[in-house]
Amino acid sequence: MSEAFDEQLMAAVKRRRAVVNAEIPDEIPAEDPERLWSAARHLLDAGGKRLRPTVLMMVAEALTDADPETVDYRSFETLTGGEVDLVRAAVSVEIVHTFTLIHDDIMDDDDLRRGVEAVHEVYDEEMAIIAGDTLYAKAFDLMLNAGATPERTNRALELLTETCTKICVGQALDVDFETRREVLPDEYLEMIDHKTAVLYGASAGIPAILMGADQDTVESVYRFGRQVGQAFQIQDDVLDLTTPSEKLGKRRGSDLIEGKQTIITVHARDQGVDVDSLLPDEGEITEADVDDAVAILEAAGSIDYARDMAQELVVNGKAHLRTLPDNEVRRYLSGIADYLIERDY
Amino acid sequence: MSEAFDEQLMAAVKRRRAVVNAEIPDEIPAEDPERLWSAARHLLDAGGKRLRPTVLMMVAEALTDADPETVDYRSFETLTGGEVDLVRAAVSVEIVHTFTLIHDDIMDDDDLRRGVEAVHEVYDEEMAIIAGDTLYAKAFDLMLNAGATPERTNRALELLTETCTKICVGQALDVDFETRREVLPDEYLEMIDHKTAVLYGASAGIPAILMGADQDTVESVYRFGRQVGQAFQIQDDVLDLTTPSEKLGKRRGSDLIEGKQTIITVHARDQGVDVDSLLPDEGEITEADVDDAVAILEAAGSIDYARDMAQELVVNGKAHLRTLPDNEVRRYLSGIADYLIERDY
Repeated sequence: MSEAFDEQLMAAVKRRRAVVNAEIPDEIPAEDPERLWSAARHLLDAGGKRLRPTVLMMVAEALTDADPETVDYRSFETLTGGEVDLVRAAVSVEIVHTFTLIHDDIMDDDDLRRGVEAVHEVYDEEMAIIAGDTLYAKAFDLMLNAGATPERTNRALELLTETCTKICVGQALDVDFETRREVLPDEYLEMIDHKTAVLYGASAGIPAILMGADQDTVESVYRFGRQVGQAFQIQDDVLDLTTPSEKLGKRRGSDLIEGKQTIITVHARDQGVDVDSLLPDEGEITEADVDDAVAILEAAGSIDYARDMAQELVVNGKAHLRTLPDNEVRRYLSGIADYLIERDY
Repeated sequence: MSEAFDEQLMAAVKRRRAVVNAEIPDEIPAEDPERLWSAARHLLDAGGKRLRPTVLMMVAEALTDADPETVDYRSFETLTGGEVDLVRAAVSVEIVHTFTLIHDDIMDDDDLRRGVEAVHEVYDEEMAIIAGDTLYAKAFDLMLNAGATPERTNRALELLTETCTKICVGQALDVDFETRREVLPDEYLEMIDHKTAVLYGASAGIPAILMGADQDTVESVYRFGRQVGQAFQIQDDVLDLTTPSEKLGKRRGSDLIEGKQTIITVHARDQGVDVDSLLPDEGEITEADVDDAVAILEAAGSIDYARDMAQELVVNGKAHLRTLPDNEVRRYLSGIADYLIERDY
């Protein structure tokens, strides 16, 4: 893609992120009890890429051939006439993502998130559990009140509910893998599909439902989101090993150091690499140690295996966009998919 | 009420509880990952009074004048024709209750619940958080698939969502009260209203929505549920002080021993009683110590104050039942309200 397109794409993503950021305080006002709502808002206010709500807005725009210059996301015209508050639907998927982060951080005992302290660190664990539960209800509340027809609202909620269940299953599998030595590639893919990809699928599928698209289109954009979501997670695993710590914002090789399974280690083990001995058992782990480990994984073909898989998922995912009208925003969606695996941090 | 009526009432409650118990395994099957679903089912399988689903079923029955002999809860005819799966709606409210118990037990670090170990004790905290989150989605899933019209389904979900948010607010207030010395009676009532009563309100209001009742009827039965739910919690506070430990299933005076605020201590403090000195600071607390404390609270009129309040709430709550047809099941609903404050354990 050309440099000019890349700049347009970044500007388009930024514009939609700004819309989401501006509307979050309106949709989740700081009510009483103040401590609960502050805890619920903590991570939302800390920023984030807002990729899920951006995908949601863009799918609706591409599908309806909306004019990017005059579009009103609060009164967004559907394919069948009638208007939907697309901001509420967009904030809804961002909130699902946020509540899972809050609860995951408690479970994994992670202290930092989006460059700020985790909710359970700033407040406490009790408050973090309730704040997550409160956002959970809020996500449904926003989707219920996005103004779509009752039948479409029902279908959107059904997809959202199914997605929340799958995210929980993915998290349960992730917890389970921590105590298991052998994880098969398909099992790992199922885990990231549930934990990460299904919410991208929902972010793409829900706007199609709300706009009144036919079932084939809903399924196509859903598959786009889901495959691209899988690629996104696999690319994260690659970057963890290949991007310098300064750029990554966390220590390079942290998955390896923490003994986390990724598609790369799962593949390497399958190739006969003694993954548990890649890093020294004792003493401080140096950059050179991480370099050596990465070299072994490279030699086993495991990093290329992951890169190829992400690439293939993006190619397949993008093919599903053909169901949308050929317009500028569709090209942005395609560009986002490319960006997710081309990014180097 | 006559002894014959009491027996009929108990049989009627038991019959509906048996329906709920029989259907839970079908609605929440033990799928993969097995550990997650077992954790989610743990408290549901441990039993419970099933009062909320019973109220839900009975409101639908009373409203539609259903024949108790031939009623089919899976294909329950609404006021406007068409059928609803009332079992799913009933299990949905029971599941909301269950997920809040699982998360509350983590927050309060309670080890026992319904005579069995809490979920976070049998499994671990991680699994208890995810199990609660999974049930949260399941509750919405069941309500979405109870077969009502899309418009009624949306309204039922709106009430369920609002209820979940209020339960979180109630829990946040409860946590907040633990560190506050002064709690006003109205604040305490707001807390139990949110934490306990709104779900009784929803259990009564949702079937009216699903059956297609008019808005006045929905609001009336909602108020019935909510006021009776408040009375239920206040009666729990009274019983904690007045029922022998053997009968209570936990130590008499446990709220007082744990320093928990109840409407009784809030009233007593307002009357000038030094609530913090009711029990000795040091050494083992004996039955005689609890007797002395109860005597002081009795003398301050605090126990009668709570009893009167519960009584008044039940009288007012029952008055709202007048909106329902005069039939056997309406009398059962009235009888359940009486039972909640007449019970001595």
